[in-house]
Amino acid sequence: MAGFRIGVVGASGAVGRRMVSILEERGFPTESIRLFASQRSAGSAILFKGKPIIVELLHPGSFTPDIDILLFSAGASVSRQYAPLAAQLGIFVIDNSSCWRMEKDIPLVVPEVNPHVLAPEKKIIANPNCSTIQMVCVLYPIHKRVRIKRVIVSTYQSVSGAGQKAIWELEKQTKSLTEKGTIDPPVVFPHQIAFNLIPQIDTFLDNGYTKEEMKMVNETRKIMEDYSLQITATCVRVPVFISHSESVTIELSDELSPQEAASLLESTPGVRVIDQPKESRYPLPVNVAGKDEVFVGRIRKDLSFEHGLSFWIVADNLRKGAALNAVQIAELLVEKQFVSRDRI
Amino acid sequence: MAGFRIGVVGASGAVGRRMVSILEERGFPTESIRLFASQRSAGSAILFKGKPIIVELLHPGSFTPDIDILLFSAGASVSRQYAPLAAQLGIFVIDNSSCWRMEKDIPLVVPEVNPHVLAPEKKIIANPNCSTIQMVCVLYPIHKRVRIKRVIVSTYQSVSGAGQKAIWELEKQTKSLTEKGTIDPPVVFPHQIAFNLIPQIDTFLDNGYTKEEMKMVNETRKIMEDYSLQITATCVRVPVFISHSESVTIELSDELSPQEAASLLESTPGVRVIDQPKESRYPLPVNVAGKDEVFVGRIRKDLSFEHGLSFWIVADNLRKGAALNAVQIAELLVEKQFVSRDRI
Repeated sequence: MAGFRIGVVGASGAVGRRMVSILEERGFPTESIRLFASQRSAGSAILFKGKPIIVELLHPGSFTPDIDILLFSAGASVSRQYAPLAAQLGIFVIDNSSCWRMEKDIPLVVPEVNPHVLAPEKKIIANPNCSTIQMVCVLYPIHKRVRIKRVIVSTYQSVSGAGQKAIWELEKQTKSLTEKGTIDPPVVFPHQIAFNLIPQIDTFLDNGYTKEEMKMVNETRKIMEDYSLQITATCVRVPVFISHSESVTIELSDELSPQEAASLLESTPGVRVIDQPKESRYPLPVNVAGKDEVFVGRIRKDLSFEHGLSFWIVADNLRKGAALNAVQIAELLVEKQFVSRDRI
Repeated sequence: MAGFRIGVVGASGAVGRRMVSILEERGFPTESIRLFASQRSAGSAILFKGKPIIVELLHPGSFTPDIDILLFSAGASVSRQYAPLAAQLGIFVIDNSSCWRMEKDIPLVVPEVNPHVLAPEKKIIANPNCSTIQMVCVLYPIHKRVRIKRVIVSTYQSVSGAGQKAIWELEKQTKSLTEKGTIDPPVVFPHQIAFNLIPQIDTFLDNGYTKEEMKMVNETRKIMEDYSLQITATCVRVPVFISHSESVTIELSDELSPQEAASLLESTPGVRVIDQPKESRYPLPVNVAGKDEVFVGRIRKDLSFEHGLSFWIVADNLRKGAALNAVQIAELLVEKQFVSRDRI
């Protein structure tokens, strides 16, 4: 048997397409791949290893027990309905939506941080929020060395985090503004995004924070397994196509110099340090788009805390922030032999 | 006598032009206006009250003692050379550059915050950094009520902060990318700014911070007259034409509820609260451009401090962040009768 039977739900979306291409790029051992989507995309074809794969319509009878792993990226309501159906058939579900992330018994996994929470019987696995993934990749190795007490993060999130239609909306508005000076009313975003900023990602809760901001707060604590961590977040949409950026300030329980933090991060798998500011070298969203690593720069002693550090963290939100992290979780399931080529 | 003899140095720049138009808009009592610029713009004409005013070449003999107030916006090196020449003639200089701001005897003034530092004999007056002005307008009334211990700010600064050529660079790059998919090497900024972010404004110092970031730290302390304030800043250039935005988190020495902060700010001159997040109402750079007030929203209890608040602050960096603040200082000089219509 050559490999595993993989399925991708939401295969035609911005993240779903990357799940398919990353499985191929990384040589994930696949025996077969099935792609699922809604009515709108069913019947279209997506290339996998040079072969067109026809996208199947997702319906309650879609899944068969011979599938080993399903990657989901089709929104929380699809996950809520379909992930349990798959799990009941013994299929591992790696779900990119927010649906299951904060459920007590659902592993919320960043492979570089908490691979140990995976278990053979835990069929539904949650892929964290994009902004959270890139932040914990940088904070976790530091937290292990010197305990982090407090995190203050402001994000600069690209439109691709809101899907393919959001990318088109930025393109269309930009063209319309540069050619005619006006735009049609926005559809995806609550306001104009071209040449503008929107301090709202997802909807607002009663505490004045958006769901996106509270995901960063709650998911970071769960992944880092430290509920004493004090975190606050401000999430802002910016007119960038791909890559989320973050200005992060942390208070530490003891001293850690910027040099020590940099050398720790340089030896951290999945993290790349770009930090020669005087040569204007630091991570930039346009350069990071398409890359797998989490990039960090502007590592410096924070000026407001006795023991503090500040960082500028950038990652491709569609790759490490979503599709790549999900594929890495699938790789872990194989490595840990929770799925086996000899299952049937 | 109908009014005062005003001069504007750097009259053809993005800020200089706004100084001229804001003097007119606000009905500043002018008897005459003289405009100065470098060789490149000398000889061109700028309209003032419907009359074209010819821009004079700035040279060491430009100023005559019959000028009452000079507004400077021509960069630090011009200010360093020419402001003392004017002051020696008894002319008030309101300087928008960073040249004199941190000099001990030079007043650094935000009219809503520290008008009392002006004095008849202090001829050179510094206009603060754009990002600093809008932040202190919001923080000062809070600080007076409940002492602020700590400020963590991340900025989202528009290209107009780097001048007219920077506006053209964003326009040109955007067109080039949408039409051809490529850009010419950047000239004003160290990297592509269209659809990108640059975590560098001005040059870097040895502590890993940019001059812009240290301006926010040092000027805020001087203006608020509290050197115990702990401040850290991360300044980022974003592809927005006009208005700077700021994500600000503060630690307070005691409790102040978001509701109390909001009502305090609602009654603060020069500040406007827009804060109905569930209706997607908060300050946006495109809406704030051209407005005089400092806009604040997303006022909420910070989640990381026992006593903390977070804010989203937006202001037109060319107006309140530069030209308007300078004109307001000129108005104060008139109001305090430091310049008088009967001087000669």
